[in-house]
Amino acid sequence: MAVRTRRRRRAASPQERAEELTRAARSTCAPLARAGSGEKDAALLAAADLLGRRRRRIRDANAKDLRAGRKADLSSALLDRLEITPARLAKMAEGLAQIAALPDPVGEVMRGWRRPSGLRIRKVRTPIGVIFMIYESRPNVTIDAGGLALKSGNAVILRGGKEALHSNLALGACLAEAVRKSGLPQAAVQVVDTPDRALVEALLQRNESIDVVIPRGGKGLIRTVLAQSSIPVIMHLDGVCHVYVDASADLDMARRIVVNAKVQRPGVCNAMETLLVHRDVAAAFLPKCLRALRRAGVELRGCPATRKAARGVAVKPTEEADWWTEYLDLVLSVKVVDSLDQAIAHINTYGSRHTDAIVTADVSAAERFRNEVDSSSVMVNASTRFSDGFEYGLGAEMGISTNKLHARGPMGLEELTTYKFLVDGDGHVRE
Amino acid sequence: MAVRTRRRRRAASPQERAEELTRAARSTCAPLARAGSGEKDAALLAAADLLGRRRRRIRDANAKDLRAGRKADLSSALLDRLEITPARLAKMAEGLAQIAALPDPVGEVMRGWRRPSGLRIRKVRTPIGVIFMIYESRPNVTIDAGGLALKSGNAVILRGGKEALHSNLALGACLAEAVRKSGLPQAAVQVVDTPDRALVEALLQRNESIDVVIPRGGKGLIRTVLAQSSIPVIMHLDGVCHVYVDASADLDMARRIVVNAKVQRPGVCNAMETLLVHRDVAAAFLPKCLRALRRAGVELRGCPATRKAARGVAVKPTEEADWWTEYLDLVLSVKVVDSLDQAIAHINTYGSRHTDAIVTADVSAAERFRNEVDSSSVMVNASTRFSDGFEYGLGAEMGISTNKLHARGPMGLEELTTYKFLVDGDGHVRE
Repeated sequence: MAVRTRRRRRAASPQERAEELTRAARSTCAPLARAGSGEKDAALLAAADLLGRRRRRIRDANAKDLRAGRKADLSSALLDRLEITPARLAKMAEGLAQIAALPDPVGEVMRGWRRPSGLRIRKVRTPIGVIFMIYESRPNVTIDAGGLALKSGNAVILRGGKEALHSNLALGACLAEAVRKSGLPQAAVQVVDTPDRALVEALLQRNESIDVVIPRGGKGLIRTVLAQSSIPVIMHLDGVCHVYVDASADLDMARRIVVNAKVQRPGVCNAMETLLVHRDVAAAFLPKCLRALRRAGVELRGCPATRKAARGVAVKPTEEADWWTEYLDLVLSVKVVDSLDQAIAHINTYGSRHTDAIVTADVSAAERFRNEVDSSSVMVNASTRFSDGFEYGLGAEMGISTNKLHARGPMGLEELTTYKFLVDGDGHVRE
Repeated sequence: MAVRTRRRRRAASPQERAEELTRAARSTCAPLARAGSGEKDAALLAAADLLGRRRRRIRDANAKDLRAGRKADLSSALLDRLEITPARLAKMAEGLAQIAALPDPVGEVMRGWRRPSGLRIRKVRTPIGVIFMIYESRPNVTIDAGGLALKSGNAVILRGGKEALHSNLALGACLAEAVRKSGLPQAAVQVVDTPDRALVEALLQRNESIDVVIPRGGKGLIRTVLAQSSIPVIMHLDGVCHVYVDASADLDMARRIVVNAKVQRPGVCNAMETLLVHRDVAAAFLPKCLRALRRAGVELRGCPATRKAARGVAVKPTEEADWWTEYLDLVLSVKVVDSLDQAIAHINTYGSRHTDAIVTADVSAAERFRNEVDSSSVMVNASTRFSDGFEYGLGAEMGISTNKLHARGPMGLEELTTYKFLVDGDGHVRE
């Protein structure tokens, strides 16, 4: 006891705090893996309920963050992302209820078979273990990610942006409290209660006790995580998404898709950043389409052929850097290409292998585009904006992974699981 | 041309060579992804044929490695692993024919569905891209890994141990030649032709052009890869595998399983390293079982209760380090436990989450063991030695992954693939 008291007196080091957090998380893995859907869903619904009952406490915590944000001169866009309005809080609660309604991925027999020797083998879905989620600004991620982790039987350590610290703590407390009330271990959901970066660094060193890191935020964050840690990472990097308008495209359809992909929500990763147009339809397609984009407030940048075909619509010249850029804004670069091959080559060179679309009436062009564009989502005659877990019907979304391994593209509950092989014999030995 | 000649004159730097290798590999990705099973299988069968026709060349290359190995005082075990006997060469050819006979994973529609909006979505298996495989000693890995990579449509860069350099080059040349003859790009299979470690380090920096690193070898190798690279890694770490003999076990069955798991092939990762025995059956089980193990040449180390129950069989005392050790040899540590809980706790603490088995007649003990042991393979009444791609009927094996993400446990062709979402609309835009 004396030792304990003495240790308590001085502040714990980041390493000690990291160990405490991960040890607590790890200790919940076995009971979480065993937990039935009933207990997990009850916890999710209880958390949804608590969000409503504690709305004042959450509003006060959020107000503290907003005041600090204004003092720190955060942009109005950032302040908007930070704010928890009553509608947004209601949406978080609704999200938890939706997660509760989804089928439990844990325990699913993915495949089962019998070997000639009589050995029975099952490949069964299990939780991954401990997830460390690092994210920026939007506090609803605390609820979404916490809820998805819980449903998939994983312990989660949540580390949001420092601007949202009080909001995240208030939201996380609802989850942890609900987990405890449902008879599950409270440490299944932990929100890091300090903006200290040294603690993040210490957590990133804990290979033995963290199974996966999921960073969601700017490239800087992701690069830092990759550089500092050898824990497996599920990344959410950039979306330099393309729409290619083929020579055979229905040009009205193409215009609707292009405008939608650019302007419906320009600040997200599945919005279009570069438009490619086959030269045979450039003159017929571009003027009307570019006018529609301008009318929607889009700044246009184009290759020489684009500017020539623009017929009076204001198009600035592009620079090499434009083709690599994720604007996340009402800006678009436009290029006229000679062929489908050139379009595919452009996408595979400059794209980020996120989401790319072709508008075409030609079956074989569609098939070549599907096969040869190396992106996690490849669309034919649809807006890139559909690349999203909810739109795909996965029922939930942890993010859109730019990994090729484990999870690629929109991530749902299944992507938060791993599997084990269960092998049953009757005294089987190997000859 | 002048520039090229000048560049050729000086030796290329490791960075330049790494770029050359990866650029060549990357350039084969699109044709490999497009290739039909027919072409890939033809290449595999042509390679099998070439192994036979070039047996002299391969034997000479192998003899060179063996001579150098003897000079360098390699152990007889290592020299044995290095040797390509006619039987082993025939087995490599047979392995290629088996891979050719397997179903092609690429293009498989893993799931397909239609959304309420009419959008059609397919999740389709695709190659990963470029695989960098680093392995030690046994030259057959060149053929196995090269064949599996080819069948799954991936480009592969193979870097074997320096002791096997000439053997690996001779074997790899058969694969590359067969690939070329079948109309596929020869650089799909490249064997690194130098033992230079700087080149490996340079390759490990090429995040943009290598999609996954698969190291197979000692822990040192894997730690180095993890430390040096931020490319995703599929690891093959250690197997500290356990057999737990429950109070309800059929003791004859238990003895057969224990002896098989330890002695049938002690040098591999799925061999048992620690035996756990419930105290209620320790006296009845241990003497006969330990005698059988001693007779098979196993050195025994045991906890005090084991040594007490051993009744005259020579059992050395264990040290704490023993419980953590993968002997890969005819050595076994033995512990008497008080309960199923203690057995599970021991396995989850000291084990490596590879393969663990229970011998029991009790349905609920079996079920608790299956659920609570956090290992990639959990066996009931079967030897740990079954944990293997061929034994599971996966038809092939790239290794046994100790990752939790992407591939866990025995890895077949499917684990060498990723997927993409193909989305088909009729002008769909998002509201």
